Amino acid sequence: MIINPETIGYLAATLTTASFLPQAILTIRTKDTESLSLSMYSLFTLGVFCWLIYGIYLSNKAMIFANAITLVLATSILAFKIYNILFKKG
Amino acid sequence: MIINPETIGYLAATLTTASFLPQAILTIRTKDTESLSLSMYSLFTLGVFCWLIYGIYLSNKAMIFANAITLVLATSILAFKIYNILFKKG
Repeated sequence: MIINPETIGYLAATLTTASFLPQAILTIRTKDTESLSLSMYSLFTLGVFCWLIYGIYLSNKAMIFANAITLVLATSILAFKIYNILFKKG
Repeated sequence: MIINPETIGYLAATLTTASFLPQAILTIRTKDTESLSLSMYSLFTLGVFCWLIYGIYLSNKAMIFANAITLVLATSILAFKIYNILFKKG
């Protein structure tokens, strides 16, 4: 059986994005960010942004697809975290 | 200022790998996996494995570097989780 390498790329994109979804849904639904680390999410969000830029440079659709979705989710979580730090208790 | 696109790739690789390190160190040090999700880590580990294979196919060093390190860390966490489920309380 020969697997198209691009299929591996899309499988990778789907799996890592899907693994991030439950945390994103939980945070967006509850707005509770107390157990999340600001420094970890800041590094992660900036990293995903860089992967997206790099994916656009490589014209790699699997990288663009995965990182665009993850960036929206990670930015939402980070925004809730920063809002809670500024206006609530953490 | 012109930034080399490969630098963006390595920056992305370093940032997302670094953001995963604190969780990995905490889990490997404490061996406590109760608050970690088996399904989430299974999807993530399989996804990182696919990104590594895809990176090898693309001969992309930043992708290989980031995903090889993350795969070792994620597999260690998953192994602790499965061990704890089988022999301890979760």
